[in-house]
Amino acid sequence: MSDETCIFCDIAANKMPAFRIYEDDRTLAFADINPATPGHTLVIPKQHYVNIMELTPGDVAAVHQTVQRVARAIKATLKPEGIMIAQLNGAAAGQVIMHYHVHLIPRNPGDALSAMSWQMKPGDMAQIEKLAAQIASVL
Amino acid sequence: MSDETCIFCDIAANKMPAFRIYEDDRTLAFADINPATPGHTLVIPKQHYVNIMELTPGDVAAVHQTVQRVARAIKATLKPEGIMIAQLNGAAAGQVIMHYHVHLIPRNPGDALSAMSWQMKPGDMAQIEKLAAQIASVL
Repeated sequence: MSDETCIFCDIAANKMPAFRIYEDDRTLAFADINPATPGHTLVIPKQHYVNIMELTPGDVAAVHQTVQRVARAIKATLKPEGIMIAQLNGAAAGQVIMHYHVHLIPRNPGDALSAMSWQMKPGDMAQIEKLAAQIASVL
Repeated sequence: MSDETCIFCDIAANKMPAFRIYEDDRTLAFADINPATPGHTLVIPKQHYVNIMELTPGDVAAVHQTVQRVARAIKATLKPEGIMIAQLNGAAAGQVIMHYHVHLIPRNPGDALSAMSWQMKPGDMAQIEKLAAQIASVL
């Protein structure tokens, strides 16, 4: 099922051009044309889902098995020191295209993203414990 | 198989305390004690893998199905506007603990991470095409 106003559905259906990297029945990998670093690749399910809340368990597995396959190919070819994998859900998390997608971003020391990480600082243990219990309460 | 110097293996084996959120045969979710935002949760495979290159396809599926389950629980309980999911491979990508783990970070407008995103700017199309072909060549 596709959404007719969705650019990633159009790419999946070959109605819109893309630099395709890998494809199988359920998933597609293609180059991000606004790369955070060279080699920035996206993996999507072909079916339209807005975010992680919506995927079937089968598509969760298929997408992330493709992510692994493409990560290995990026490592083998571009030889980055690291790979950042990010999947953003909701505009508040930085999601721009509202079709679930996983970013694979090759990383090297001093690259354009090197300032982009959160600071590791110890949290308030009582709050951490309380929130963990709250999340766990529905699982 | 566990690594005896690995803190996440110790947590998985109950040799080290943690605020546990969800657990099944293959995976464990627990609170990050250095939370980027309140409710920051980690999902790990119980087996020791350094990074995404090493997981079995079965553990890739299991970990990300747990990620989805925990994301839904975070959404249901803490009600963040968004959730950022990140999985860092290699020190150059910001990985600190060398046991594969997925971060689930609740996001809201104006939170501590709101400055942390890459700028969307169009890339060099010839380079994007060349790198995509290079990655695809081994797939």
